[in-house]
Amino acid sequence: MNYKLSVVYEGTRYKGWQRQKNSEMTIQGKIESVLSRYFGHPIEINGASRTDAGVHAAAQVANFKTDRAVEAKELMAYVNQYLPEDIGIFEIEAVPESYHARFHTKRKVYLYRLWTADYPPVFQRREVFWHRGASLDMEAMKEGAKLLEGKHDFKGFCTDKTKKSTERNLREISIAVTENEIRFIVEGDGFLYNMVRIIVGTLLEIGEGKRTPESVLRVLETGDRALAGETAPAQGLLLYKTFDE
Amino acid sequence: MNYKLSVVYEGTRYKGWQRQKNSEMTIQGKIESVLSRYFGHPIEINGASRTDAGVHAAAQVANFKTDRAVEAKELMAYVNQYLPEDIGIFEIEAVPESYHARFHTKRKVYLYRLWTADYPPVFQRREVFWHRGASLDMEAMKEGAKLLEGKHDFKGFCTDKTKKSTERNLREISIAVTENEIRFIVEGDGFLYNMVRIIVGTLLEIGEGKRTPESVLRVLETGDRALAGETAPAQGLLLYKTFDE
Repeated sequence: MNYKLSVVYEGTRYKGWQRQKNSEMTIQGKIESVLSRYFGHPIEINGASRTDAGVHAAAQVANFKTDRAVEAKELMAYVNQYLPEDIGIFEIEAVPESYHARFHTKRKVYLYRLWTADYPPVFQRREVFWHRGASLDMEAMKEGAKLLEGKHDFKGFCTDKTKKSTERNLREISIAVTENEIRFIVEGDGFLYNMVRIIVGTLLEIGEGKRTPESVLRVLETGDRALAGETAPAQGLLLYKTFDE
Repeated sequence: MNYKLSVVYEGTRYKGWQRQKNSEMTIQGKIESVLSRYFGHPIEINGASRTDAGVHAAAQVANFKTDRAVEAKELMAYVNQYLPEDIGIFEIEAVPESYHARFHTKRKVYLYRLWTADYPPVFQRREVFWHRGASLDMEAMKEGAKLLEGKHDFKGFCTDKTKKSTERNLREISIAVTENEIRFIVEGDGFLYNMVRIIVGTLLEIGEGKRTPESVLRVLETGDRALAGETAPAQGLLLYKTFDE
């Protein structure tokens, strides 16, 4: 049997999604531990996105295989009872044997929340990055974002040391302004390590007037991480949605 | 000089609004301590509502007097820097000498948030009460709420031991249903101790079929607290808004 899980978590206390040998504080580890207890044998889950330490998810997707057929509703009640209060499973469904969360996820949407008010984000403080100081040049940020859209080599916008391809298709970056927040909605087929956070950090520097929108072109051309902006803090980032097609 | 403060706080860690001799963990105490440091002499603030331990506020109002005229913007930056991260001041304004937050607040709106999904309220877990179990009879709850609206003696819906009048004007209780929540919006001229939480607890028992909508009439008639429902947990309650007129 193959089961697909839809997972929500606040990443603040965790060292990220991926299981680690030296820490119990990973999302994958916590979920595997509860599932293994339920089934009575070790369960390994496979997640669509390996979110970093401190990053949140509204809809992470994962799957796991087991010999035993179970009632999804009963299993969901069990895991939600035993998981820590900052991790929840909001859907469990039986899927075809061939389904693999990472390989079958074709699109992802990340949300980066920037708090811009002159008072603290009391209720949202774990999920936003508080940008204090001068107001941001929205037009310049949108211009910079536009230049990043499309299929590019994003080597300069990641901290991967991989020798694999760093080409990705960045479908869209939209920027929404609410009364107290600026929200970056970043949609792509896949993302490199720290890619969204470096893109947001770079757009912020554009908004602050520290660099021009066109400066992102040099980062794309050279693939030089040093030419991009600072990595924006993890706590503002949320894996918002994943799509199978 | 008389200054009016608009305050937002997550009440989870606090023993309520009102300063206490034996605890530093009150909202009033935290704000007074920062203001006193700024002015160099003790400042006492007067709040519109004495919210209970664990209750939150999106817009509490308070005022304080001092001999010194200050720049509101500068003072606001100072207090927001030194207050704990779960308390924020989002407005400071100079008001006439006669203004008194408690006496001048003529209407208050409280919001009670009930989480009704079958998975945990990960991001909202400190601000909602998770109602697990069967679905609630919305029509019956609305009927019970309607019977409570208007000017009544709410003695049976409070835990006050006061000999003062327990008559209050409950302007409106509206109940809004979202995908994962039921929200009780309770508006009145003033509220007794625990009044909103006991009303919500009683409406919940109506929704669960444990009592009839009409049963609230007996509580109003007799003033007997024992005939009302359980007090709903503090964490779901938020002082949403106050009005000067």
